[in-house]
Parts: sequence; structure tokens; C-alpha cells
Amino acid sequence: MPDIQTKENCTFCKKEITSKSFYSTEQFSALYNISPVLPGHSLIIPNKHYTSLFELSDEELSKMMIFARQITAVLKTVFQCDGFDWTIQDGVSAGQTVPHLHLHIIPRKKYDLPEGDEWYGKILQNEAQMIESNQRERLNDKEYMAITEKLAKAAAGLL
Amino acid sequence: MPDIQTKENCTFCKKEITSKSFYSTEQFSALYNISPVLPGHSLIIPNKHYTSLFELSDEELSKMMIFARQITAVLKTVFQCDGFDWTIQDGVSAGQTVPHLHLHIIPRKKYDLPEGDEWYGKILQNEAQMIESNQRERLNDKEYMAITEKLAKAAAGLL
Repeated sequence: MPDIQTKENCTFCKKEITSKSFYSTEQFSALYNISPVLPGHSLIIPNKHYTSLFELSDEELSKMMIFARQITAVLKTVFQCDGFDWTIQDGVSAGQTVPHLHLHIIPRKKYDLPEGDEWYGKILQNEAQMIESNQRERLNDKEYMAITEKLAKAAAGLL
Repeated sequence: MPDIQTKENCTFCKKEITSKSFYSTEQFSALYNISPVLPGHSLIIPNKHYTSLFELSDEELSKMMIFARQITAVLKTVFQCDGFDWTIQDGVSAGQTVPHLHLHIIPRKKYDLPEGDEWYGKILQNEAQMIESNQRERLNDKEYMAITEKLAKAAAGLL
């Protein structure tokens, strides 16, 4: 079991994480996933420490989704994908392990998952694995920063 | 493979489906899933035939998410859940089988999925099964209308 996280030791409030965002506004940030489920797998987070979607005002919720869609457009372009999945797991019972609201964006292309492969489902069931899995390749710092810089450049050009 | 659907024969544009919505505004509707993955599994759709999230204006996107959150609150109350999953599959490559934008809301409670059970993942991979599965129990008309009426009453009281 992971340690219980509070605002003070929240993964998504740590400067060493948020400083690696590839695109940010005053209110929201886009981060590349350190162990992507598929190429392009990214996370949208509010900069403020909210745990649940229900803590956002209507205006914040709207802005978060508009921001997420902008980032999705960037990811679809960079990773040459024609589809995408959005997933939010809200609450411990829903599989949320980092108690800081985050939306998963997974760009998709045809045949990107082997037919009958079940790992995609397994990681949705256990979000700890969705964000940082021991079962998937974890990018090293150099790889992570290379893709972050590529995305930052694309986002700056497109948004 | 399911038949390719156009606007003319779209499942979510059919009156016999939309007339069973348990809560609607001018722009959006909430429908109970005929084969719920878990109790409470519902769908949010725009009333207009949009295929992708990218076809909505910023204002429509905002309103859809605010509407979805309102419906999620109703579902959490009725099904006594403390968490929820939101999932959108956008594009054929992402597993979208009904070409009418829809957001899945799955209310969650602790231990609602047997540990190690993989069916949740399997249906996320194949959305045809997510909406109407031969592998899960399909509600009959009486059951479906009973739950729809219960939800309509709850929504009318809460929203």
C-alpha cells in the first residue's frame, strides 16, 4: 500500500514534479506520465491542491476541461493519433491513489493495444500502476526531459 | 464488428432511447446504462449529434462537464457511493463504438470490484461491451424503467 498522502507531501504539489510540466497556466498544468501506458500518456492537474472534482467551482471545472482539450490537441498532433481516452478516478474507492485531482489523457491510434491484452484494464483498476508502474518501463530523467521539451515546444507553437 | 453508425441511425439519437433519459436539459441528457458495469453506471450525452469532444464549443464543453458533475452527485447519493470514475473514449481507435459523444459515469464504493478481477478492464477496452454487453446481465424493460424513474425523482429533488 502506498503511504497516505496529505497536501504537505502530495506528489503533484512537489516542485520537482510541477517544474517539469510541459505546459501551464495560472490554474492548470500538463505533465507527461513517467511510465506512460501508451506514448503520449499525460496528466492534467489543477495547480491548487484539490482532491476531488467536486471541490472545483463551475468556472474552474470549465477551465480545466478546456485546458485538457487544448493539451489533447497537442498530444494528438505530436503523437499522430486520431483518438484519445480521458479518465478520472475520483476517490479512494474509485482507485485514486494520488489525492490530487488529475485527468489522464491517453492518445490512441489503431492497433496500439494488442488484441486481448489485458494490462490496460489492470492499470485502470490500480491507479498507482497507472501513474508509476514497476511493470512498465519507467523513463529515465534524460528521456523524460527530452519528451517534455518536445511537448513544451509543440504546445508553445500550437496554443 | 458492429454496423457503422451514421447520424441517421445513431443509437443515441433514437427517440426510444432518448425518451428514457432520467434527466435532461435543452443541451444534454443523462441515461442509465442498459447493462451497467456496476450499479449506477450512466451515460452523459449531448442532445445534438456530436461524435467528438472536439466538435463542442468551449461553452458547450463547459456546460456538459457541469451537467455531468450534477448527475454524478445524484448517482453518488442514490447509490450511496463515495467515489466515481469518468471515462470518455473518443474515436474508433480509442474504442468508441457509438459515434455519438458520451461520458461514462461509474459510481464506486470500496470493494465493489473483486480484487484481481479483470472484467472491468476488458470492457474498457471494448466499448461495445461497456454499453451493452452479452457477458453482463442486461436489464429488462421493467427493471430499466424502475431505475430510471427512481433516478428521475432523485434528480428532480436534488437539482
